[in-house]
Amino acid sequence: MSAFPDPHIWLAHRVAHEETDANGELYHAKYLHLFEKGSSEFMRAHSIGYAEMESRALFLPVREAAYRCHASARYDEPFWIRAGIGKWGRASLRFFYELWDESRKLLLATGFTQHVTVDPAGKIVLVPSWLRRIGAK
Amino acid sequence: MSAFPDPHIWLAHRVAHEETDANGELYHAKYLHLFEKGSSEFMRAHSIGYAEMESRALFLPVREAAYRCHASARYDEPFWIRAGIGKWGRASLRFFYELWDESRKLLLATGFTQHVTVDPAGKIVLVPSWLRRIGAK
Amino acid sequence: MSAFPDPHIWLAHRVAHEETDANGELYHAKYLHLFEKGSSEFMRAHSIGYAEMESRALFLPVREAAYRCHASARYDEPFWIRAGIGKWGRASLRFFYELWDESRKLLLATGFTQHVTVDPAGKIVLVPSWLRRIGAK
Amino acid sequence: MSAFPDPHIWLAHRVAHEETDANGELYHAKYLHLFEKGSSEFMRAHSIGYAEMESRALFLPVREAAYRCHASARYDEPFWIRAGIGKWGRASLRFFYELWDESRKLLLATGFTQHVTVDPAGKIVLVPSWLRRIGAK
Repeated sequence: MSAFPDPHIWLAHRVAHEETDANGELYHAKYLHLFEKGSSEFMRAHSIGYAEMESRALFLPVREAAYRCHASARYDEPFWIRAGIGKWGRASLRFFYELWDESRKLLLATGFTQHVTVDPAGKIVLVPSWLRRIGAK
Repeated sequence: MSAFPDPHIWLAHRVAHEETDANGELYHAKYLHLFEKGSSEFMRAHSIGYAEMESRALFLPVREAAYRCHASARYDEPFWIRAGIGKWGRASLRFFYELWDESRKLLLATGFTQHVTVDPAGKIVLVPSWLRRIGAK
Repeated sequence: MSAFPDPHIWLAHRVAHEETDANGELYHAKYLHLFEKGSSEFMRAHSIGYAEMESRALFLPVREAAYRCHASARYDEPFWIRAGIGKWGRASLRFFYELWDESRKLLLATGFTQHVTVDPAGKIVLVPSWLRRIGAK
Repeated sequence: MSAFPDPHIWLAHRVAHEETDANGELYHAKYLHLFEKGSSEFMRAHSIGYAEMESRALFLPVREAAYRCHASARYDEPFWIRAGIGKWGRASLRFFYELWDESRKLLLATGFTQHVTVDPAGKIVLVPSWLRRIGAK
């Protein structure tokens, strides 16, 4: 396996009908939804669910995203979403993602989403210390 | 053709990749998105776009929806969405929909969405006369 | 609670970002995807996953679907999908669904999908006994 | 405007309900669907629709994708999708995309999708001359 950010989470998922394309395979345009499930799970695993973020008045809009497709998965197949924060800026952070098959031996896809830290008005703010802390090993 | 509400609109569409299922055919769970394109187009055709609704402080949340699948359409095929309002309540209205193939000879699907009329706070209000007027022939 | 088909399954889910609408609430057009997760889970719980269906050369295309919206759920909120088969025809069956909030006290939505039993060529076939058996209490 | 591949197409679109996020704005994970509408339109504009590709037994699976978000668009707002092929490999090509607001003055997003040329069995093949020709000015 590649060097992946630590800490990170593994989230089990199964290819849903609506996630397949005309070949009956996991459709790449759905990766972003899967990535998002991964980052949400990562945040929850660190006790920072969306309600918590909202109460702390911090939001993480996406500014950039990218992915590579390595192998496909078929409808109803179980697979893994791996997610962690791998890069911190002064007012930004980058989530990294991998999708692995059930055995965690075949890498299906890799990707990232780049986020900025903003307040409810959309104004860019510094990454608060309580957030930065979750990226430390 | 069936007796369909008048007035109504016809909106041209083409089966997008993300609207297909594993058989490469238009996926039924996407009908609601197509219906919504139809009702939006109907409203715009009557000069009541979303911005107009918003400025008049009226919203039309869906309370019920249903559809039947008659025939399928394949990826990239052009087809028609037909939409009109067919039933008015005191504080509700029902949009009817049909999906037809390019030649308008083969009916692909039928359906409806039932809406209530509410104010921005979500409180049910009577259907205003400027809205009811668009349903008259 | 209403009289719901037995047996049935309860599947835990959480409102994903892509399932919300402009109000930040669970978007009705996504119900069909949730229903589908429910029926897939029901089948798997009876050891009839998609691969099993495929190997038995039986498919269950949707012919009709409907739902009612009762209450909303917000982004990131956990909720329950309940699914079971409630009606059997000679060559058809109907799945019923309910969405409940986390406490199972507030009903969010109800619905059904009507399916026909077909072979890989799309020809209608009788409901096989091994399938009908899973609907028995 | 930036230096964008020539030839290219401009496709008019309108933010659909299902393309908005909880802020009522165009949701980034939907960009890939919009990009795909753009590349399909580009191919059709060069008389190479999907049926034509299929009859020539050539497919263009996505291997990589990326985008940047610059500005947002609101529900029901019209905007433009611009698409063209900007990079040719021996067995690959890259589509570039831009999303612009109605006036074509505000850039909403940029992105690309990297494709490989394969036969129906998924085997990589050289870009055929009839395809490469459409990239020439």
